[in-house]
Amino acid sequence: MTKELTRLTTEDQVAKLLGFELLEVSPGYAKAEMQIQSSHLNGIGTLHGGIMFSLADYVFAVAANSYGTPTVAVQAGISYYKTPSGPIVSAESKELSNGRKICSYEVEIRDPDGTLVAKFIGTGYRKI
Amino acid sequence: MTKELTRLTTEDQVAKLLGFELLEVSPGYAKAEMQIQSSHLNGIGTLHGGIMFSLADYVFAVAANSYGTPTVAVQAGISYYKTPSGPIVSAESKELSNGRKICSYEVEIRDPDGTLVAKFIGTGYRKI
Amino acid sequence: MTKELTRLTTEDQVAKLLGFELLEVSPGYAKAEMQIQSSHLNGIGTLHGGIMFSLADYVFAVAANSYGTPTVAVQAGISYYKTPSGPIVSAESKELSNGRKICSYEVEIRDPDGTLVAKFIGTGYRKI
Amino acid sequence: MTKELTRLTTEDQVAKLLGFELLEVSPGYAKAEMQIQSSHLNGIGTLHGGIMFSLADYVFAVAANSYGTPTVAVQAGISYYKTPSGPIVSAESKELSNGRKICSYEVEIRDPDGTLVAKFIGTGYRKI
Repeated sequence: MTKELTRLTTEDQVAKLLGFELLEVSPGYAKAEMQIQSSHLNGIGTLHGGIMFSLADYVFAVAANSYGTPTVAVQAGISYYKTPSGPIVSAESKELSNGRKICSYEVEIRDPDGTLVAKFIGTGYRKI
Repeated sequence: MTKELTRLTTEDQVAKLLGFELLEVSPGYAKAEMQIQSSHLNGIGTLHGGIMFSLADYVFAVAANSYGTPTVAVQAGISYYKTPSGPIVSAESKELSNGRKICSYEVEIRDPDGTLVAKFIGTGYRKI
Repeated sequence: MTKELTRLTTEDQVAKLLGFELLEVSPGYAKAEMQIQSSHLNGIGTLHGGIMFSLADYVFAVAANSYGTPTVAVQAGISYYKTPSGPIVSAESKELSNGRKICSYEVEIRDPDGTLVAKFIGTGYRKI
Repeated sequence: MTKELTRLTTEDQVAKLLGFELLEVSPGYAKAEMQIQSSHLNGIGTLHGGIMFSLADYVFAVAANSYGTPTVAVQAGISYYKTPSGPIVSAESKELSNGRKICSYEVEIRDPDGTLVAKFIGTGYRKI
């Protein structure tokens, strides 16, 4: 992995705090999963939308930085479809566009049986 | 505060984990803040976009549930403008639309000096 | 086609004005295309983002209403990737989620050679 | 007005086709309105979401290009709140962020009595 990508994946404190496990990385692609824990729940006892977004944002950032060019998120949107069935959710990021300065990735969050839980699209800006 | 709102604000485990402090609630409105901690940082050492989203999502959920009708997020988008200057960021949620079944709230995340750091719009669905 | 769907596809005045041609419809799915015309251009002489959005919104609406339940858009987002190469763009809508009250569809707008030009995700609310 | 802005406002063919009237422009700001016409209606007889988006996108583009730097949309989202009461809707674009390469604008679409009909946020990329 490139130096920039290594830093992203090894020094992301939120990934550590929330227990994101990176499963696979290739150019323009990343996949991760997390165990749902009691500290991840919202006030109604289901997986917090912010935690799902954070997992999606993480694989988006890993995929967007997979070429070694430092890339930051400028905008992201997420749609929520169902309460995760547990005990794990996975997130897979695929490239939609890889421009010189602007890039776009879609992320699908799924239950262990493959059911779609949420979908995210993020726009990145390549800083150099 | 209504019973539903009390549960959201007192039983949100992510708010506890990430240190969100609710400052103000009124019908259709909520404001909170958080201290930026080292566990909130991404791989490039700045406040993680997922943490900012989570803070925004929290005040959105509190405001959307402030009438006592259980409301869940169906979609949300966030735009990021600058790295927070620290050590605190605040998030304020205002109502854009309060329909019988669908509602919309905008959230502004700001630095202590008032500079806009990020903007969020969330769509909620009233379950009953 | 159901009565509701027929009305959508035959009485949409914007589809007529802008020249949208519906190519295919099935439950949860729709595909259309349009010829790029001079009246579709923005101030820099390329296909207007609002026209691309309108085409995407049209196939989203057709797909979302394909079951016969009146469904309205509550939110939509679009990401733009490249200037269309012309002279035609197509839009294909696929179902991401089909809940009782809330549904979600993604739309991909493509050049004749299949290159992705823009991506749209829309959230619908089923009125009955 | 700058040369770039002049071109946007005078040569936008969609603004002509749909009848957008630019009311006010200043650095980072634009306001326009349109008369709702029968050619603007969707299959259920109300103002087409794509037309509302196009009007919002137009004032976004005018505001984003108001400094004279060519700026293109990379992403935009819109939330719909109510059917316009007619016969006119207005759209006002305000600056959220004006970075060297990335900018963000929010647009509110309103009925003649000031009721909020829809809200749009667009992200622009400054090409030079």
